Amino acid sequence: MSLPTARDVLQAARRLAPWVHRTPVMRSRTLDQMLRAQVFFKCESFQRSGSFKYRGASNAVLQLSADQRARGVVAHSSGNHAQALALAARKAGLACTIVMPRGSVRIKRQAVEGYGARIILCENTLAAREAVAEQVVARTGATLIHPYDHPQVVAGQGTAVLELWEEVGPLELVLVPVGGGGLAAGTALALEHLAAGSVPLVGVEPEVADDARRSLEQGTLLPSSYPATIADGLRTSLGRIPFAILRRHRVPILTVSEEAIREATQWVWSRLKVVVEPSAAVPVAALLQRKVSVEGKRIGVILTGGNVDCSRWWSG
Amino acid sequence: MSLPTARDVLQAARRLAPWVHRTPVMRSRTLDQMLRAQVFFKCESFQRSGSFKYRGASNAVLQLSADQRARGVVAHSSGNHAQALALAARKAGLACTIVMPRGSVRIKRQAVEGYGARIILCENTLAAREAVAEQVVARTGATLIHPYDHPQVVAGQGTAVLELWEEVGPLELVLVPVGGGGLAAGTALALEHLAAGSVPLVGVEPEVADDARRSLEQGTLLPSSYPATIADGLRTSLGRIPFAILRRHRVPILTVSEEAIREATQWVWSRLKVVVEPSAAVPVAALLQRKVSVEGKRIGVILTGGNVDCSRWWSG
Repeated sequence: MSLPTARDVLQAARRLAPWVHRTPVMRSRTLDQMLRAQVFFKCESFQRSGSFKYRGASNAVLQLSADQRARGVVAHSSGNHAQALALAARKAGLACTIVMPRGSVRIKRQAVEGYGARIILCENTLAAREAVAEQVVARTGATLIHPYDHPQVVAGQGTAVLELWEEVGPLELVLVPVGGGGLAAGTALALEHLAAGSVPLVGVEPEVADDARRSLEQGTLLPSSYPATIADGLRTSLGRIPFAILRRHRVPILTVSEEAIREATQWVWSRLKVVVEPSAAVPVAALLQRKVSVEGKRIGVILTGGNVDCSRWWSG
Repeated sequence: MSLPTARDVLQAARRLAPWVHRTPVMRSRTLDQMLRAQVFFKCESFQRSGSFKYRGASNAVLQLSADQRARGVVAHSSGNHAQALALAARKAGLACTIVMPRGSVRIKRQAVEGYGARIILCENTLAAREAVAEQVVARTGATLIHPYDHPQVVAGQGTAVLELWEEVGPLELVLVPVGGGGLAAGTALALEHLAAGSVPLVGVEPEVADDARRSLEQGTLLPSSYPATIADGLRTSLGRIPFAILRRHRVPILTVSEEAIREATQWVWSRLKVVVEPSAAVPVAALLQRKVSVEGKRIGVILTGGNVDCSRWWSG
């Protein structure tokens, strides 16, 4: 298993600079006063494809050989990685196939199709998704781009905190949500470069999907099985590469309740006026619930994405 | 009746520069491709108090005499002007009273209270609101700040398009929603300065609240009575000052259906990831419905505000 390094994150930042949006940073005076801290929100909802996943997917796509480019890319995902890879592939002029479970939300299928990718539907299990993706690889020679267990993807995700730091100056604490762990691992590598590991990174998970916390505490990967959290982007289990990096950096993991995630999502919408999906609000929940000591600190939070079905609002 | 001028808008811009947020401008490649145009969205959801109304309210508050300041300000409003004035008054260290109908949404009352204003509840009619506000003026000597029929408020609203133009360069068409008409009138004055009236401004209204269109077509103010539009910020009737300015500038008014407003609101949320209220999406509805000829043009749209009850999303 080849682990990416801080240097890979720096190289990714140079590679991605003309390719990704430099997303805006938002603040809330109310929150800063309440916490007696300064919180800087890096708003990846405004990233192309609607989430930070475009960074990692693009970083992988841009490093394919001419031969690999000719055969295209494939991924199995029903979430933000699918949209990110579809868009990155289109922009690079590559064919892209996305394997999605039949039960996927229509709006997500439409987004992937809108970016010009081919969709193959499969049964609603991880095994089925992997098997179908492997068939595509065998048949077409396409390169499989894993959503987080991929060194270049992890390195790409680390560029978000680099941009944030560059824009607002040194931070004293960084919070990110943890699903597969690609963002958390990339952020840990970036902070190694920015602050030689002196700036704590805290990962935050839903209580009901706390496989990263358990895995890191017990020193072995303990996958979760289909946890029922509203933070649908964090239902996946920690990957092997992220696990190794988070373990080496001794990244602590906090957990938050479903109710706290709900409140935090609403807080971001109504206060920051940024559309975020519940997964993105998970670190905000940790702040609002005062799960972490922040007083007097300059805190960075990656608001990971905003791909949420907005039509639900009208039915209320 | 004293009408504000283009010069008043320029003075307001200088006065407000250190006082308001310079809100970001967003774009959508998908929309630009679809319309074969370039659309620049000035995102006033990110303005302080959550809407452009903070510009006009602040412009009025900052021009009070020492004597007036000592007696505070009052407004009758259940909407964005209430929050805007409450915040502007707090920032200026003034007392503020807001007269609100008993039926006002709880979340809006809480916001006004959160900004430290005193709330007086009254019956749910315009007459009752005006009467109670007059009582406050008579008793306390407070200055009434009207949400749109006020020269300084109109001038303040015109600063949004000035900022947009400064940031993105010359525009060839500008779209704004029309309720009381303060923003439309201020924008018309700003465009008089920016382009000597050569850049068309188009106002957009809900079909069921088309009093501005009817009034301007017939050359006389024709108020609407409690129109049932989801664009709750546009239920109010065109004011006398805005009417005079829009008439002189021959500003055309388009109308859009409730369904189109709904779709446009959802489009902004899901594509731009900016939380807007339905009123803000009304000009977007005109674009999506192709109610106006835009091909090849550089178009400015003021996304007026984002004060919407986000808790509704969860009930879906």
